[in-house]
Amino acid sequence: MFRPEIKVVDCTIRDGGLINNWDFSLEMVRDVYLALSKAGVDYMETGYKADKSIFPPSESGMWRYCDEPLLREMVDGTPSDMGIATMVDVGRVNLDDILPKTESVIDLYRVATYVQDIDKAIFIANHCHDKGYKTTINIMAISKALLSDLEEALRQVEAETQVLACYVVDSFGALYCEQIELLVKTYRQHLKTREVGVHAHNNQQLAYANTIEGIIHDANFVDATIYGIGRAAGNCPLELLLSFLKNPKFDVRPIFDVISKWFIPLSKKEEWGYLIPYMITGSLNEHPRAAINLLKSDDREDFSKFYESIAHPPEIA
Amino acid sequence: MFRPEIKVVDCTIRDGGLINNWDFSLEMVRDVYLALSKAGVDYMETGYKADKSIFPPSESGMWRYCDEPLLREMVDGTPSDMGIATMVDVGRVNLDDILPKTESVIDLYRVATYVQDIDKAIFIANHCHDKGYKTTINIMAISKALLSDLEEALRQVEAETQVLACYVVDSFGALYCEQIELLVKTYRQHLKTREVGVHAHNNQQLAYANTIEGIIHDANFVDATIYGIGRAAGNCPLELLLSFLKNPKFDVRPIFDVISKWFIPLSKKEEWGYLIPYMITGSLNEHPRAAINLLKSDDREDFSKFYESIAHPPEIA
Repeated sequence: MFRPEIKVVDCTIRDGGLINNWDFSLEMVRDVYLALSKAGVDYMETGYKADKSIFPPSESGMWRYCDEPLLREMVDGTPSDMGIATMVDVGRVNLDDILPKTESVIDLYRVATYVQDIDKAIFIANHCHDKGYKTTINIMAISKALLSDLEEALRQVEAETQVLACYVVDSFGALYCEQIELLVKTYRQHLKTREVGVHAHNNQQLAYANTIEGIIHDANFVDATIYGIGRAAGNCPLELLLSFLKNPKFDVRPIFDVISKWFIPLSKKEEWGYLIPYMITGSLNEHPRAAINLLKSDDREDFSKFYESIAHPPEIA
Repeated sequence: MFRPEIKVVDCTIRDGGLINNWDFSLEMVRDVYLALSKAGVDYMETGYKADKSIFPPSESGMWRYCDEPLLREMVDGTPSDMGIATMVDVGRVNLDDILPKTESVIDLYRVATYVQDIDKAIFIANHCHDKGYKTTINIMAISKALLSDLEEALRQVEAETQVLACYVVDSFGALYCEQIELLVKTYRQHLKTREVGVHAHNNQQLAYANTIEGIIHDANFVDATIYGIGRAAGNCPLELLLSFLKNPKFDVRPIFDVISKWFIPLSKKEEWGYLIPYMITGSLNEHPRAAINLLKSDDREDFSKFYESIAHPPEIA
């Protein structure tokens, strides 16, 4: 018996864009849009709505901005039951760029924040809500959040917003199942009238397993990406998630077709997935940036030295 | 607080040998032996003890046979606290090849069987036990076993053998956490005086997660391989498992060194890990052989056609 409340959010273009600077062709993104629609995915996240005064368009691909004409070209007269989502980062969005809902194909704004910026995230989410959008708040780097801060933030989200869901975002790919269980239960305890979401990273090959764990404990918003594309080790692979979910509206086959056509070739140009430096930062609960830098260097396979530099950094006492 | 009863069994050479026909150099295997010893691994499985009248030595690498002189060269005057294990397959071993324990560096024989061959496996395990060895019985393809057959087999293992442990072997990489929990609990219910083992495959990126799940439910024998090497999608990566276990005797760093030296280069010649055809057979609870054949063909990226062939084969009614 499936749970109809479960919503699958595909983050292929948004999180995948972190590794190719959002430089996907319109042709590819449109193919992804059509495949996700056919697959029964609930929301497609098309990228960020980034502030062009901070990130000049000359330096990034177009899916970092998700201008309305671009999204309309992506849809191109083929509307679907799938919602269109876009992410905004606290401190990196110009709220004037957000059109009233009546003028946009976007359905859902997802606000990414660290727990300490929750007040700013709430302000942005309410701004988007007032313009007519659905919203979520996605609390990043959750494996570093203090429980007391997190609980206060969750109480605020419950009391002060109209978000559909608030997310556990394991940005570092540091968590395993018992920690996901604890976090989802904590969220559920404070979010009486909202859904809980899970966004996992795959540093320790646990993104899919942790997403299942979230589902078991009643998280109803679950993120995934095609072929697991995403920053560093990537995300929960959508093809695995759809093969797990029992709702007959889901069909994994269109996803296989875009993997064959687009993601296998892309995987030969861009690197993501299980690599030892990402495994090291994940298992040590650190941001992957040091691993990303290592992998660009000549020392990319000196794993023991890298492990030491992360596990036993110079004293900071 | 760690659980000292947990034993880590490395299957790198045995399960990894399934993808290169056990054709590892002595130099490499000796490096693996030294690294595993330093890492605090409890047992190293060095390969199979295969019947040469069935598998001629001219057609396979030397680690398919694990002749005593070879293993002594591997140890080469550097004994360690680590036990040496070798696998035998029901129907593929000549029991006369098994020396008395007093003449062998092997400590542990692991008997691989399907549930329907449990009587044969028990006979072999008892034979090895009588020659002075520790033993385990590893029940393969567990995701296809009928519960009634399995429970009968487990009662026999408890009553008729002296094995240290009996394993849940998810040969097809088909199981997720709730199924592992159910199986480990079933094993524990029937194996009052034996340990339960978990050997996972990574078709759905769940090998490590399922191994953790087994540990949570008191499985104390856990298998892994360096960099996840193993047939098809491979196994639970040892580096992940050691990073999870809290017993201070474990040290993951020597494993990173052999990954750099041997397994990164090997991964450029031999293919294992998360590939969509393996994901498809795993998610559909089938043997990976069709996926292995597909990946050798020109159609290796026609995933949808392959999915249809497995999900909806010609009618058999």
